[in-house]
Parts: sequence; C-alpha cells; structure tokens
Amino acid sequence: MRTIDWNKESKTIMMIDQTLLPKEYRVIECATLSSLCEAIKTLRVRGAPALGAAGGFGVALAATLSSAIAMDGLIKDMNVAARTIKATRPTAVNLAWGVDRVMHAISDAYDVDGIRDIAISEAVRIAEEDVLINKKIGLYGAKLLDDGDTVMTHCNAGRLACVDWGTALGVIRSAVETGKEIKVIACETRPLNQGSRITTWELMQDNIPVTLITDSMSGHVMRERMVDKVIVGADRITEDVVFNKIGTYTHSVIAKEHEIPFYVAAPISTFDFKGWEGSVRIELRKPDELRFFGNEQLAPSDVPVYNPAFDVTPMENITAIITERGVFHPPFLLDEVLA
Amino acid sequence: MRTIDWNKESKTIMMIDQTLLPKEYRVIECATLSSLCEAIKTLRVRGAPALGAAGGFGVALAATLSSAIAMDGLIKDMNVAARTIKATRPTAVNLAWGVDRVMHAISDAYDVDGIRDIAISEAVRIAEEDVLINKKIGLYGAKLLDDGDTVMTHCNAGRLACVDWGTALGVIRSAVETGKEIKVIACETRPLNQGSRITTWELMQDNIPVTLITDSMSGHVMRERMVDKVIVGADRITEDVVFNKIGTYTHSVIAKEHEIPFYVAAPISTFDFKGWEGSVRIELRKPDELRFFGNEQLAPSDVPVYNPAFDVTPMENITAIITERGVFHPPFLLDEVLA
Repeated sequence: MRTIDWNKESKTIMMIDQTLLPKEYRVIECATLSSLCEAIKTLRVRGAPALGAAGGFGVALAATLSSAIAMDGLIKDMNVAARTIKATRPTAVNLAWGVDRVMHAISDAYDVDGIRDIAISEAVRIAEEDVLINKKIGLYGAKLLDDGDTVMTHCNAGRLACVDWGTALGVIRSAVETGKEIKVIACETRPLNQGSRITTWELMQDNIPVTLITDSMSGHVMRERMVDKVIVGADRITEDVVFNKIGTYTHSVIAKEHEIPFYVAAPISTFDFKGWEGSVRIELRKPDELRFFGNEQLAPSDVPVYNPAFDVTPMENITAIITERGVFHPPFLLDEVLA
Repeated sequence: MRTIDWNKESKTIMMIDQTLLPKEYRVIECATLSSLCEAIKTLRVRGAPALGAAGGFGVALAATLSSAIAMDGLIKDMNVAARTIKATRPTAVNLAWGVDRVMHAISDAYDVDGIRDIAISEAVRIAEEDVLINKKIGLYGAKLLDDGDTVMTHCNAGRLACVDWGTALGVIRSAVETGKEIKVIACETRPLNQGSRITTWELMQDNIPVTLITDSMSGHVMRERMVDKVIVGADRITEDVVFNKIGTYTHSVIAKEHEIPFYVAAPISTFDFKGWEGSVRIELRKPDELRFFGNEQLAPSDVPVYNPAFDVTPMENITAIITERGVFHPPFLLDEVLA
C-alpha cells in the first residue's frame, strides 16, 4: 500500500493514517472532501511530496462527487474544492501545487466526462511521477553506499513522507534492492519524534535493520565509528545552505569532525534557485511541543521554550546532494543543476 | 530540603524524588537498603555528588539496620551492602567513592556502636563537604562568566545532582550571586529529560532566566551566536577524557566548531587518576527509555535501541575544568591537580 492512492473501483482516496503509527497500521478511505481535509489538517497524511498527491487526488475526488451536468457547473464545484483543500495547510507549497496542476490539466477537456477523466488521470500521474523521481534518486544514491554500510538518518525522509519509496530512505531501499547489506541508525528527531515513530516503523516493515538512538547520541556513535555515512532529506535547498528538520546542522558538524560523508537526498523541486539563507524565515513552533509528549509532562508548563522547526546546514558541511538528475557536489551545485 | 539527607530521628535516608519533577515535589524516605537501591537505579536520586552522599548514607543505613552484635558480623553485613549499592550504577565513580569512604572510616572503630556512629557521621560529613565543595567550585567558576552571558548546559549538574548548590549550575548561581546577569539555555537531555524536567525547574525556582531547547538544537543556537559559554558537569574524569551524560560530546564538538568556551565543573572526587577512556565500560540502559515516555509510545515496541548512558569527551574539546581547588586547563590537568 502506498502512502496515498486512488481507489479506481470506489473512486475514493485511500491513505495510511500516520497519526496512529507505530501503535497501529490502519488504511483509511476518504470518500468525501471533508474527510480528506480533516486528514490533511490532523497530519494523517504529511510530507511535502505526499501532500502534492493529496492535493491532486482531492480535486479529482471533488470532480467525481460533483453532480454537475454542465462544464461550468463542474468547474465551479472544483474551484470551490480547490480553495477548501489549499486552506487546510496554507504554507504547504506542494499541496497547492498538486491542486493547481490538476486544475490546469482539465482545461484540455471538452465535456464533463472529459474533465472527470483528466482530473483523475492527472492526479494519478502526480503520484506516479513522485514514485519515479524517488526511484531515480534511489538509483543515483545507491551507488554512494557500500555493502555493509551503516547509514545514519534524521527525521523521516521515507516512503511515508512521499507517495512511495522515499528520498533519504529511498536511497537506502535502492541500495538494499541491489543486494547491498545496509544497516540504519535512526535519530528519534525531537520534538515530534518522526524518526522514532515513522522511520523505524517503515524500515522494520521492509526488514531493513534499524537501530534507534536519541539525537544527542550522533556524536557518540560517530566517534565510535558506528556510522559510515549520513543521509538526510531537505525542506528547501538554496545556493548556500540546506534547510531541513532541526538537528540536521548538528549532525553535519559531527560528521565533518569525523570525516564521515554527509549526503542530502531531495528532488529538484526542493531547490529554491532565488533564495538564500537570509531570505527564509525559520518557522517557530509551539512551546508545548517541548513541554509535553501526548499526556506526559516533560517540563514546567510555563518554562520559556525556543522551538525552531528547522535549521540551516551550509554547503561546506555537505558531501553531495542526490537528486533525480544525478549527484551534485558543492560548491558548484546550482550551476550544475541548471545545466 | 537538601537533595538527599540523613534523618537523625528515624535513622533513614530522606530524598527529593526527582522522577516526579516538575509535576510534583515529593520527599521520600528510604528505610531499607532495597528501597535505596531502587531509588538509585530508577534515578529518584541521580547526579555524581548526590550519588556520593547516597553511597555513604547507604552504608550507614546498612550499619544501622544490621542486627549483628559482633564487629566482624557487622562489617560483613556492611561489605555485602557496599557491593550491592555499588552495583546499582557501576559507571558512577562517586557512588563507589562514597561507599568506600565510609567503609574506610569505620576501621577506626573499636566496637559495633563505634562502627555505627562513625558510619553515620562520616556519611553526614560527605554531604556537608559536598555543599562546601560546590560553593568553592562556584567561586572559581563565577570568574569565568561575564555579566550578560548566555550559558548553555546539558542534563542537570545542579542542586538536585548534588547535595545542594550544584556544580555547573552552582557556577551560574555563584555568578548571579555576585551580581552578574546570566541567562541559561537548557538542553532537554534525552532520553530521561533531566534538563527539561529538573534543570529548568531548579533555575525557575531561583528566578534565573532559562530557555528550554531540544538537544539537537545546540548546533543551531551556537551557529546563531545565542550561546556565550557551555558548562556541563562530569560523571568521571580521567587523564584523557571526561565521561558525562550522553550528548555532552556532541555539544563539545559544536562548541569547538564555533570557538565557544566549553567548561566542565566537577569536584576532585570525580577524577579517576588511574583510569583512562578504555578502562571504563559505558553503561547501556534499557531500550524502553527510547520507546516510551511514561504512558506515551514513541517508537515500535520491538525496535532495536542503542542507549548508552554516557559519552566520552576528549580533553582537546574542553577549555577548562572547574574544581574546588581551582580552574585547570588541559592537557596538564592531572599534574596540576595532583600538585
């Protein structure tokens, strides 16, 4: 089962409910627009590429559900749905991108059946393309891993952040597929523990050996030579830096200190060719993420907290960036990618 | 109330149950050796100096509880207790030191009452001396801090790690006492969150400004120049390295990268003059510490976990070690300390 998929028979959206992991694996069906929007809002589906697919499937679902018999009525219904879906996570660029791509595709249709067919096929294409991109990233990245390697990763740049396969974890999957024995060390990734909750679960499903550590142990495991390579994903890549989940920069400094290769795996869509470190404001998240975990209290309920969502890793700490167009080595990154 | 103390009336050990903080402040009584050992194992009492006192009080408690009427029987009972207490936290050098100091002191006794009296008075002396030592560490260390400094710390090397005042936090308290304005950044210290649960609570009690971060943010806050100095405690100091709470080494590498002074504050009793890195086995703690937090599940219940309690920071990463005998700069540490 993919992270998110279109059910051809029932014409509904199927997804893995990620809020229940690792305790429970449950596939849920979104047969209405409101159930899809609820799933996006509550992070049952998350991760930039997966949200792109969710946006596309959402508009296709709206087209299917609409009772309109004329083209303008159907397009009107779909436009309302498009706005509703985008509003669920207004900062998620990929969600809006997926919605807009399907809305753009239907302009080729000449009747309501055509609109419905194109909406579905374009949404499916978004999902298919995402898998293909990840497989290509995997193909290039797998060559960087050696048989017997132990690879450390942070957060979840895996199948469940995408439609399938994953970026950082996709590289590991591809290496395993070619017969290499790869072990993974997963950092738990405080404060939301995507590493311990999702990355470990994903890898255990695939029988790829994984060991969980706290984020603070990265220094110790690298000093003890327990790590051969580090691979992480990326939220945004500018010419000078990589923005990724908080903790990435710390791991990159430790890797540099121990001369351990530090790789970033990400699709070209992650590149922000106009941006630079200073042009991006780092999102500060709620203090309660550090004060509580579920019902458990971790700190005084009124303690001041600094909770940036991501940090900034300069290119000098990065050995290479693995994309679907190949492996790029700083500092000539953007020139090469654009070539 | 001190972190740990001897109750003269009931001849029992009183301690603040640190596992309940910050939710609840509760003083518990250990009237049996097994309740003390349970308290040490489950970290109701923790921190090197506090464990020194716990070791001393534990042997005194064993002497009090023993029904032996002859000296050799009493000493035998105390020796059994000494081994049992030491085995609760084998890496904690202070625990064994406290035990041994009381066992050594009783050799002056000439009857069973004398043994019991000496055991208690020597254990009480350990606790008293610890407070005095911390005040001296504070006095020396405070000179290293400047008015307006923001100091990052890891774990809890505070009042609650000691009998009172604290080592790393004692330095901060002493600096504040001299009128300097000091802000603290506390790392939460996974997996047991002594930083978020105890350090923040302690400092808030004293109205010293504190901000909580995840351990993984140390790189980000140092890169952003939000930290002027780092001060941590130590569990054991050998000629080549400092053993301290897991995560310390990671912070030390980040501090070195950013040329931020990295101080260790610890009493001379923490020094292991015969030991070296390879002579100390690092305690591996239970996997469930990373799989669960209280009733909340953080990871698959069967995920393999690597959970070392301590890591190893080489002297080259340490700017100075602050002791009750003064401030020592590596690499000539032991020669100076021994002088």
